[in-house]
Amino acid sequence: MAPVVLLTDFGNRDPYVGIMKGVVLGRNPNARIIDLCHEVPPQDVRAAAFYLLTSASHFPKGSIFVTVVDPGVGSERRILWARTDSHQFLFPDNGVLSWLERKRPLKEIREVSNKKLWLESPSSTFHGRDIFAPVAGSLSRGVSAAKLGPKVGAHEKMPFPLVSFKAGTVRGEILAIDRFGNAISNIRPEHLKAGTEIRFKRRSVGAVRAHYAQGREGAPLALSGSSGFVELSVRNGDFARKFGARAGDIIECY
Amino acid sequence: MAPVVLLTDFGNRDPYVGIMKGVVLGRNPNARIIDLCHEVPPQDVRAAAFYLLTSASHFPKGSIFVTVVDPGVGSERRILWARTDSHQFLFPDNGVLSWLERKRPLKEIREVSNKKLWLESPSSTFHGRDIFAPVAGSLSRGVSAAKLGPKVGAHEKMPFPLVSFKAGTVRGEILAIDRFGNAISNIRPEHLKAGTEIRFKRRSVGAVRAHYAQGREGAPLALSGSSGFVELSVRNGDFARKFGARAGDIIECY
Amino acid sequence: MAPVVLLTDFGNRDPYVGIMKGVVLGRNPNARIIDLCHEVPPQDVRAAAFYLLTSASHFPKGSIFVTVVDPGVGSERRILWARTDSHQFLFPDNGVLSWLERKRPLKEIREVSNKKLWLESPSSTFHGRDIFAPVAGSLSRGVSAAKLGPKVGAHEKMPFPLVSFKAGTVRGEILAIDRFGNAISNIRPEHLKAGTEIRFKRRSVGAVRAHYAQGREGAPLALSGSSGFVELSVRNGDFARKFGARAGDIIECY
Repeated sequence: MAPVVLLTDFGNRDPYVGIMKGVVLGRNPNARIIDLCHEVPPQDVRAAAFYLLTSASHFPKGSIFVTVVDPGVGSERRILWARTDSHQFLFPDNGVLSWLERKRPLKEIREVSNKKLWLESPSSTFHGRDIFAPVAGSLSRGVSAAKLGPKVGAHEKMPFPLVSFKAGTVRGEILAIDRFGNAISNIRPEHLKAGTEIRFKRRSVGAVRAHYAQGREGAPLALSGSSGFVELSVRNGDFARKFGARAGDIIECY
Repeated sequence: MAPVVLLTDFGNRDPYVGIMKGVVLGRNPNARIIDLCHEVPPQDVRAAAFYLLTSASHFPKGSIFVTVVDPGVGSERRILWARTDSHQFLFPDNGVLSWLERKRPLKEIREVSNKKLWLESPSSTFHGRDIFAPVAGSLSRGVSAAKLGPKVGAHEKMPFPLVSFKAGTVRGEILAIDRFGNAISNIRPEHLKAGTEIRFKRRSVGAVRAHYAQGREGAPLALSGSSGFVELSVRNGDFARKFGARAGDIIECY
Repeated sequence: MAPVVLLTDFGNRDPYVGIMKGVVLGRNPNARIIDLCHEVPPQDVRAAAFYLLTSASHFPKGSIFVTVVDPGVGSERRILWARTDSHQFLFPDNGVLSWLERKRPLKEIREVSNKKLWLESPSSTFHGRDIFAPVAGSLSRGVSAAKLGPKVGAHEKMPFPLVSFKAGTVRGEILAIDRFGNAISNIRPEHLKAGTEIRFKRRSVGAVRAHYAQGREGAPLALSGSSGFVELSVRNGDFARKFGARAGDIIECY
């Protein structure tokens, strides 16, 4: 049975995620529920977009991704369902699927508007519980996507931060900082010539290396990261803390 | 198979919750285990009572809630099993079920005293592992509640903080702060007349609104929250941090 | 089906653990995956060794423990599989199994070198996703351990911090601090004579007690802890914060 994969900004401090799981099980007692991540910073649609981009391909065909990072909850924004060749997605229409969509075109998009599949009397503030969870449970039990609501054409897009290639300089930005303090950029190592020097805040971190063991303890290091992008790291250390890196910071490659 | 739903103050930093799951599986290899929440503040029986009150109804019939928020572990306090019309509960006899019980009467209460269902040589400090988990595993495998121990009559109660209605003023208090900084009160929106003005620390937050989108970014807002109570929020912001709200603070409605 | 039990230092803030679960399910759609703990401090092999020591025996026979606390990822360190009488382990060859191994001898050790069981083109920085997860998924589906790679003899060891018994004084150290601020030592209560006085930073915390309820609120207390070691605690309080305890600190018993 295709797993229901949850990605939210609800955190682990409150019972919100647990409640969503209860509702999923109410619709499908045999549902298999996987936590992708719940510590997306509150309302940070870009972080969620990045996690979907780098995670989805590692999940089995048919997996149902439920993304609830939703600054517009309770407003007129729509809730959508979409599928690619390999996965399904429930998400607020705020562009959160845009980055994945560049690589994996959406084959079909529907508005989740059939209230018969929602909880009764949905709240205006917790659509994760009242709409996303019951619909995901129903989908995982085999309810046809056609029952969710009508097909839609246009939907919200969020531009992927583009890398600039100009006069021999490649310029990108930090997309995310992870728990280890690695700063993950939007630059793909294959777009750099061998030996290109990476700079962050005017400091050289050298060329892109193959693995941590090529760095000295404490010194910064550019790596070909596991998500397919150049990462700035410190071997067994915390790059972001040590060098003050934050999402949005610029990195340059000469 | 009815899920085993875990609510503890063990946090996610240590392996305590993982160990409990190992023990549950030792008794029932097919148990379905759901995390309701493990970040209840240490020994905060009120927070756990609030989470049970607002969560239980969203779980399937038969679900076995295991609550281990237990300042009295190792003392003479009893461990109880109880059932309502729809759910089962294992909990320390410290009043943690009192708030749920006001809405969902307990139909049967038993003391969990049959040591044959516990781990051998239980510790005095980790009853979650040594008593709650094996008993929950056994229950989920179909062991009859009658085997747990004798029926009990009286058990500990913890009063729900009552709302006062006096001379046109409704006075309540903050029960919980969530990850987003929403301050959830004990006042039910249906108990307020339309247009009643909510005040927190002498500041007006206006009347109760239907959803976030009715608030200005940065301004405080009173909402009819998803847990059935009035919540104080900031649209895409953090009310508790911005206005210094804490559990126990008073809110007034004129 | 034997559960796959995950122990990592990946934290819950990023999607790394979720991605590993996706990969496990890709190899075995019916895998049962349990989180032991993901908040091991980054690269803290000792903490992971301690958690394995105190957790493994509580899991069902056959459980597959996947430990990814791996400062040497991407270097020449090997990935190993081993089994005891009751459990299986996938782990980096950095000594993380040494403390458990003192109690539960390893019956067979293999190098995980058969790339057919890995993801294609494994990264150099995320072996949890590219090697550990697919191999664990395959093992849980019944793939024979003999397929993983050749048997190995010697492997890395990490010494367990020994307790010294000298001139009537027992001297040990703090191994871990838990979420409640309990400081867990390497001293086994059964190695102390009845009435032995425990001291921490020259302060007496009295003899080892049976349970929290024997301590006064706010006063320090030595307990026979649930992990089989002497723990320093404060009843319903935080010993580590109150008395400045950290892993590595000395405790003495007279």
